[in-house]
Amino acid sequence: MNYKKLGKILGKIMILEAILMLAPLAVAILYQEGVKNILAFAVPIFVLLLIGILLQIPKSDREELYQKEGFALTALVWVVMTLFGAIPFVINGDIPNYIDAWFEIMSGFTTTGSSVITDLTAVSHATLFWRSFSHWIGGMGILVFVLIFIPESDDGSSMHLLRAESPGPQVGKIVSKMKVTTRILYLIYLGMTALQIVILYSGPLTDYNAMCEAFGETAATAYHNDKLFYALLSSFGCAGTGGFGFLPGSIEYFTPFAQYVMSIFLILFGVNFSLYYLFLVGKVGQILKSEEFKSYFLIIVAAVAFVFLSLVGKFEAFPQTYTTEEAFRHSLFQVASLMTTAGYTTTDYDVWPMLAKMTLVVVMFIGAMAGSTAGGIKVSRIVMALKGAYINVRKLINPRYVPKAKFEGKPLEETTINDVFAFITLYFFLFVAAIFLLSFDSVNGTVVQIASDAGTYEVKHGFFSNFSAALTCISNVGPAFEAVGPYASFAGYNAFSKIILTLTMMLGRLEILPVFILFSPKTWKKV
Amino acid sequence: MNYKKLGKILGKIMILEAILMLAPLAVAILYQEGVKNILAFAVPIFVLLLIGILLQIPKSDREELYQKEGFALTALVWVVMTLFGAIPFVINGDIPNYIDAWFEIMSGFTTTGSSVITDLTAVSHATLFWRSFSHWIGGMGILVFVLIFIPESDDGSSMHLLRAESPGPQVGKIVSKMKVTTRILYLIYLGMTALQIVILYSGPLTDYNAMCEAFGETAATAYHNDKLFYALLSSFGCAGTGGFGFLPGSIEYFTPFAQYVMSIFLILFGVNFSLYYLFLVGKVGQILKSEEFKSYFLIIVAAVAFVFLSLVGKFEAFPQTYTTEEAFRHSLFQVASLMTTAGYTTTDYDVWPMLAKMTLVVVMFIGAMAGSTAGGIKVSRIVMALKGAYINVRKLINPRYVPKAKFEGKPLEETTINDVFAFITLYFFLFVAAIFLLSFDSVNGTVVQIASDAGTYEVKHGFFSNFSAALTCISNVGPAFEAVGPYASFAGYNAFSKIILTLTMMLGRLEILPVFILFSPKTWKKV
Repeated sequence: MNYKKLGKILGKIMILEAILMLAPLAVAILYQEGVKNILAFAVPIFVLLLIGILLQIPKSDREELYQKEGFALTALVWVVMTLFGAIPFVINGDIPNYIDAWFEIMSGFTTTGSSVITDLTAVSHATLFWRSFSHWIGGMGILVFVLIFIPESDDGSSMHLLRAESPGPQVGKIVSKMKVTTRILYLIYLGMTALQIVILYSGPLTDYNAMCEAFGETAATAYHNDKLFYALLSSFGCAGTGGFGFLPGSIEYFTPFAQYVMSIFLILFGVNFSLYYLFLVGKVGQILKSEEFKSYFLIIVAAVAFVFLSLVGKFEAFPQTYTTEEAFRHSLFQVASLMTTAGYTTTDYDVWPMLAKMTLVVVMFIGAMAGSTAGGIKVSRIVMALKGAYINVRKLINPRYVPKAKFEGKPLEETTINDVFAFITLYFFLFVAAIFLLSFDSVNGTVVQIASDAGTYEVKHGFFSNFSAALTCISNVGPAFEAVGPYASFAGYNAFSKIILTLTMMLGRLEILPVFILFSPKTWKKV
Repeated sequence: MNYKKLGKILGKIMILEAILMLAPLAVAILYQEGVKNILAFAVPIFVLLLIGILLQIPKSDREELYQKEGFALTALVWVVMTLFGAIPFVINGDIPNYIDAWFEIMSGFTTTGSSVITDLTAVSHATLFWRSFSHWIGGMGILVFVLIFIPESDDGSSMHLLRAESPGPQVGKIVSKMKVTTRILYLIYLGMTALQIVILYSGPLTDYNAMCEAFGETAATAYHNDKLFYALLSSFGCAGTGGFGFLPGSIEYFTPFAQYVMSIFLILFGVNFSLYYLFLVGKVGQILKSEEFKSYFLIIVAAVAFVFLSLVGKFEAFPQTYTTEEAFRHSLFQVASLMTTAGYTTTDYDVWPMLAKMTLVVVMFIGAMAGSTAGGIKVSRIVMALKGAYINVRKLINPRYVPKAKFEGKPLEETTINDVFAFITLYFFLFVAAIFLLSFDSVNGTVVQIASDAGTYEVKHGFFSNFSAALTCISNVGPAFEAVGPYASFAGYNAFSKIILTLTMMLGRLEILPVFILFSPKTWKKV
């Protein structure tokens, strides 16, 4: 292990985090949120800068990083960034418990969006900004972000970092040069985020009348006037497919216009970013030929149809009464939000009919496209696994069968299929392990009060709570069902469960193996 | 496809089924259960014999079977046997609906034990016997059974049949000659079943006082005097790891002695049968070296400990009050019963603390050893998958890493690991698909009344009901949780759901791929 080089890169990332924290610091100052909120960011900024600069001093004897070092570094960066990123919440008192704060910021950087905050109206703008901003930073990967600042000579190691960091089984090599690729992807990401902010800000964002009814005129007016702030935060969340709420009821009090805009952008941010590059250079035909792209849209259409039918068909009773437009909008929004693993909500889907809920559970497993900011298993892996299953059946029928399967126009190698099978098996194992570990919590069996657009009701913390909590964390979605549903929080879990869920988010975001590397003693041997 | 040969073997199996049905026919006569119950078996016996004999007439031009034909035949046999095996229940009126009856007998032959019968006291002895007997037949595989009767020249095809039929990834070739192996395994199976019957019959079987309290003196006396009948049925269920109940409350009214005996035999029937051969020839050392054997017992010990601690620790409230002995006995029995995928129950575990319930869910996924009569993923696959995961991490750390993994003393080939990963992925996919399809049922959201040793209470048919129903069917366990828990039945599901669950049981029992072969048009091409 090349400790000195590792420390150098880690130090640079800490300096970067300090710079990024200037944004919430500015928010605290702008909204005049007092010394406590200013110190909340100023202190970690100072500490990060200090350690970051100190780590630059030792000279390393080897410049390049080995693959294992690349992976270990990636996992380590997430640990360090979140451990420091949690400090502001503790200092300003919005999340006084450090483990809770670590859960919250891990949920932010991994673009999950599960929260332990029970009352969003009680926390500062600075806190809200830092949470949503962490989605945007985490979205395309902290390290890909930092690649831009790493000198040219590091190109060998950068490849390892990107491979560990980027969601999905493969990073399409758009152009041969790594740093150019990264810059192009980032410009697309920036551009799309900016476009969403502009569109949301230009139209009607929040529903003033509904907010008056829910929160009273004073609060409603304050929220309504914070338009730019909410346009920013919701765009950060969509871009990173994060989904932290910033108003009670998540996106419930946004106008239908804003909800449609967000649905569309969520779906767009679930697309493999290299397809946007193809779009920019005019190769639209190639995009339409992409199997993953077609499957992605097919699944969205089918899922929206299932949810919509179960809402308008009313085969099973549920409390809300929607107009047809509302039923369609909520179906579209929830599918877009949960499949892209963002996790924003417009209505209490936890009381919906079973078919609607199960459709959402299935898309939470699948996730969006590889190479997007989304979590989950990814559409490409699902497609390849199904092709692999077909090959296995054909081989049983005829042992001499030579598979000629293709994916995205290229031959689908058996080693790729095997990697996919291995990944899904591990995903399944970790998922079951997480549910098992959550069953130790004394929160099980307790009753939670929910107040939502479906009314006020009680819900018991049962199996579905733990199942969906583990799912939402490993797939980086955000809200779950039952006692951790869209109108509840994760605050009820004890510290042990929160640590389990925090690690589950990290495992999901880094696609499992790099995290294990961190825990292997072999990784830390001095070479 | 060699239709004539296929028909010939199918015909032989139909004749065999007719012979097997003589046993419940005898029960109907012995218990003087009237013309309806005699006809219930006499009619299908006649039809099976007629078709079976007719199918022997055509001469086939090719004697041997190809691999695909072997697999297709295996799956086909399960379809045919269950379609005919369901007829008695419809004729004697115990399960008037044919789809329900098909579900019931598929649950029998696949050694699942999930039932649609809501009142076990209302059905005939003949019905009860046929259900439990089907566990015993299904346990070691209908076809392995039939191999004994297939002439010597068929040895090539037999191998294909056994591969599709036997639970677990590999059938250990004990002795080179197929038919000898089969006979030895069957003698062990027969011997162990007989031993269990003798032990259960020699000791106190049912708890007379408890039954008097629950069912009144007349009924209790009748049950108590049926000792041999219940000793037979419970031994059939343990041997096949089936688990159909024959008294209300499953095994609740058996004495502690009988419950301990059953626990031990369940664990024994979950062991790979080839280890018994090693035991018979005195190679005990080799048994103790078996990794799967050690893992199997380790998991049982750990699972019993978790359940026991959650019951005596009372970290979470639950209705029953057990003595320490009772808590231990129920922990041992439930873990043994659900891990070996039998599914007998001694108490209402559905109201237990979450940790106890989740432990049971996890062992339902795992199942017992390969080469036993149990269902589930199998301990060997779990062990191999974990070794495979370790190899993948090592390869990430060092791309030049050459795996030297071993399993059961032999090198663990990468192709084997890949097959295991593929299997678990498919298992996971089918499991999720089954839960999704169950969500269409209008039973979701309805409330079920439960009366058990935990009292009388209501339970809603929710996500955990469908989740555990799919799990119990794909792992061939039997009872599930919530609305399909140990004191409920599967009767509430509609016909579509029952067909889905029936197919899920078959997929689980045949380990997925052979069933797909049945649905591939390539299989049915005339060669």
